[in-house]
Amino acid sequence: MATKVTPRSEDYSRWYTDVIQMAELADYAPVKGCMVIRPYGYALWENIQAGLDRRFKATGHVNAYFPLFIPMSFIQKEAAHVEGFSPELAVVTVGGGKQLEEPLVVRPTSETMIGHMYAKWIQSYRDLPVLINQWANVVRWEMRTRLFLRTMEFLWQEGHTAHATAEEAHEETLRMLDVYVEFATEEAAIPVIPGRKSAHETFAGAVTSYSIEAMMGDCRALQAGTSHFLGQNFARAFDIKFLDENNELQYAWTTSWGMSTRMVGAIVMVHGDDQGLVLPPKLAPLQVVVIPIWKSDSEHAAVMEAVHQVEATLRDEVRVRVDARDEYSPGWKFNEWEMRGVPLRIEIGPRDLAAGRATLARRDVPGREGKRNVPLDGVLAEVRQELATIQVDLYRRALDFRQAHTYEPQDYGEFKEAVANGFAYSWWCGDGDCEAQIGEDTKATTCCIPLEQEPGKGKCIHCGRDASEQAIFGRAY
Amino acid sequence: MATKVTPRSEDYSRWYTDVIQMAELADYAPVKGCMVIRPYGYALWENIQAGLDRRFKATGHVNAYFPLFIPMSFIQKEAAHVEGFSPELAVVTVGGGKQLEEPLVVRPTSETMIGHMYAKWIQSYRDLPVLINQWANVVRWEMRTRLFLRTMEFLWQEGHTAHATAEEAHEETLRMLDVYVEFATEEAAIPVIPGRKSAHETFAGAVTSYSIEAMMGDCRALQAGTSHFLGQNFARAFDIKFLDENNELQYAWTTSWGMSTRMVGAIVMVHGDDQGLVLPPKLAPLQVVVIPIWKSDSEHAAVMEAVHQVEATLRDEVRVRVDARDEYSPGWKFNEWEMRGVPLRIEIGPRDLAAGRATLARRDVPGREGKRNVPLDGVLAEVRQELATIQVDLYRRALDFRQAHTYEPQDYGEFKEAVANGFAYSWWCGDGDCEAQIGEDTKATTCCIPLEQEPGKGKCIHCGRDASEQAIFGRAY
Repeated sequence: MATKVTPRSEDYSRWYTDVIQMAELADYAPVKGCMVIRPYGYALWENIQAGLDRRFKATGHVNAYFPLFIPMSFIQKEAAHVEGFSPELAVVTVGGGKQLEEPLVVRPTSETMIGHMYAKWIQSYRDLPVLINQWANVVRWEMRTRLFLRTMEFLWQEGHTAHATAEEAHEETLRMLDVYVEFATEEAAIPVIPGRKSAHETFAGAVTSYSIEAMMGDCRALQAGTSHFLGQNFARAFDIKFLDENNELQYAWTTSWGMSTRMVGAIVMVHGDDQGLVLPPKLAPLQVVVIPIWKSDSEHAAVMEAVHQVEATLRDEVRVRVDARDEYSPGWKFNEWEMRGVPLRIEIGPRDLAAGRATLARRDVPGREGKRNVPLDGVLAEVRQELATIQVDLYRRALDFRQAHTYEPQDYGEFKEAVANGFAYSWWCGDGDCEAQIGEDTKATTCCIPLEQEPGKGKCIHCGRDASEQAIFGRAY
Repeated sequence: MATKVTPRSEDYSRWYTDVIQMAELADYAPVKGCMVIRPYGYALWENIQAGLDRRFKATGHVNAYFPLFIPMSFIQKEAAHVEGFSPELAVVTVGGGKQLEEPLVVRPTSETMIGHMYAKWIQSYRDLPVLINQWANVVRWEMRTRLFLRTMEFLWQEGHTAHATAEEAHEETLRMLDVYVEFATEEAAIPVIPGRKSAHETFAGAVTSYSIEAMMGDCRALQAGTSHFLGQNFARAFDIKFLDENNELQYAWTTSWGMSTRMVGAIVMVHGDDQGLVLPPKLAPLQVVVIPIWKSDSEHAAVMEAVHQVEATLRDEVRVRVDARDEYSPGWKFNEWEMRGVPLRIEIGPRDLAAGRATLARRDVPGREGKRNVPLDGVLAEVRQELATIQVDLYRRALDFRQAHTYEPQDYGEFKEAVANGFAYSWWCGDGDCEAQIGEDTKATTCCIPLEQEPGKGKCIHCGRDASEQAIFGRAY
């Protein structure tokens, strides 16, 4: 603590892990590729959960819980699914001291288990739609891991729905993508591009995958949430059938969608700076820290009284903490809470008291520019407004940054330069070989084919063939 | 659905699983010993979580998340711990297609993993106490499983704290036991006996274990929550040391405490009856169901308007649902929601409307006695009061039941009869062999040695030796 993080310009990757460890969001676990989410990081995740869960329930979903262990034979039932996931599985072979007859897979995702249960629960069109979400841990055996972004075990929510028609399932897929867009924008203050994944990047077993893509502080892309239209693939593999209104047996249409603790990494990388974390007020575990400043004992008593009064005024509406520790100086505390990304600091010293005011200091605007004096008797209204302003400004700043680093290259030479420095928005033929060649040349992938784009035609930025859609290309996490 | 559950008197165990499946609390999973928690059961669990989490935070605890996988060598570090848990472990031996060098245990509980991390985080007395809770899934390889009561995987919270002194750690252990008592009493409406476990029943690795014990509807005992004083056992095994105020290196003192989805089973068995579930209002996913009653179309419109008005009046404060399905009769719906344990039903028909009233029907008081008319314009106040009354009555009824089935036998013959019909509260010498012999004779175990008992001395109910404490004996789940 109170040591400096590595500057971003020096080593972005090191900056990232420094911030996470020094702000005590997470720590490395003794098992390779695993992490411990520490209380400060978990409080952030709890706020993310609350924001998502509220939106899921408002769109008619309910939560449930399915088993961690999946019989190996289940994973093998959907051909593309097994191909995609089998290299990443953790497998239980011993239970209660005995070798198991059928090994159990630790869920990497739950389409198969949930498909099996839906087949049991769904009989008639009257049972549809089924709109279930699960909050759970999942395990994928990853070789190259990074705190929050890619870990062997991670926490997420996975929604799994079943519908009577393709149209309804497709609507659901896009509705949940919208929920992710709205959450990222409104709560995480992260601008995202909703789009369709290329065939190559489609989820193992899906017909069509959609994602939201965000630009990190190093101009790289991060997929921050996905929503899959699964067609009848899992319904056929698991026999999810229902009697329709004409009494005919039909396969159901299913979807799945997920957002994970990866979102914490996105928040760190989109908003953080060389002082450390910068947290959006709506998700910050602490929104306001109050720091008393005093020298003499007589000052101390008066200052502390004012500090506690401010805390009492804010407490019902704002996540506030007083840092009254004796063993640290105010300057040390400023650094500490800046590193931890608390959006707003309130300083109260003898001079403030005499003037009946407090000093507010914004985390996102360094130096004198981010400070202002407010009357003590109006502190709640001022804090409320300041937090709202910070929330909006963080979003706007991230959007400006992304726009400044998004290019529309005119030829492949410009394209290569573009993806070295940010996103390229380019016509693309849609061919997988072409995509693979671009990846070899530039390390960039198709992040997504944005849903919102002007209709038209162009020439593929790489192969020059006719193209009817534009894609976002970038180097992705 | 709408089929009858097996009566309790006929087969209690069958009644229990009937209720759980028909009320759609849970279902069997395809992996032996595992279950799926269905949305209605999960909503109940979410309310349990909220009630506990609020209390944990109010007592200064924070949440965090530790890895699912624990290196096998960790489990082996604490001698009693490995002995207790090794027969119950699920072990991952293959990851990413390769045999692992060190097998990974799927956590059966997290003292070892958390002990390892605390050793890293705790340096000085200033870092203490550490007060962390985790919401997680755990796995114990069980042979004889039962929905909610004993499943291979279950959901729980596990609190893990570290302290500078034995006194503080012991205080924490009892504070959290009190939290469980308060939660069980206030929210689950379940009377519980807080007490100390016998040496034989102590948690593997603990110095002293405490539990809360409840009597189920078949007079058997259920341990509904535990709190362990771990002394320095795990601190020594994992090297959790701190520099005290005199700059001397000391081992920390730790505790752990947990409550699980087993609580759902307790609620089913304590309050349920031959119609199905009876849920305490404070935890019920739905507190009120409104059933419209009509015959003609003209009646329908007027009734539905009143029904929706009642829903709108209640919605902000009460978890309410209108069951307006056309395809089912009111009688069918009464049965259905009774089976699902909704505490209060509101019926509104043309005759009610004409009189400006609605009919309230209590789930816990069958027949005419539980029904009364209330004016439509005062419905919120009436519902609020009725729910509060039901909550209190459920608790009182459960307490009366337990007291009616708790005996103070005068000799071992009476004791045998007592534990065949409920709890025996008896002097006990504290000897493990004596306890084992009682178990062989009667299938009863020591549930706990109640914390609150009049000081005194007596003769052991089994061996007749001097005894300084009384214990609760019963046949336990």
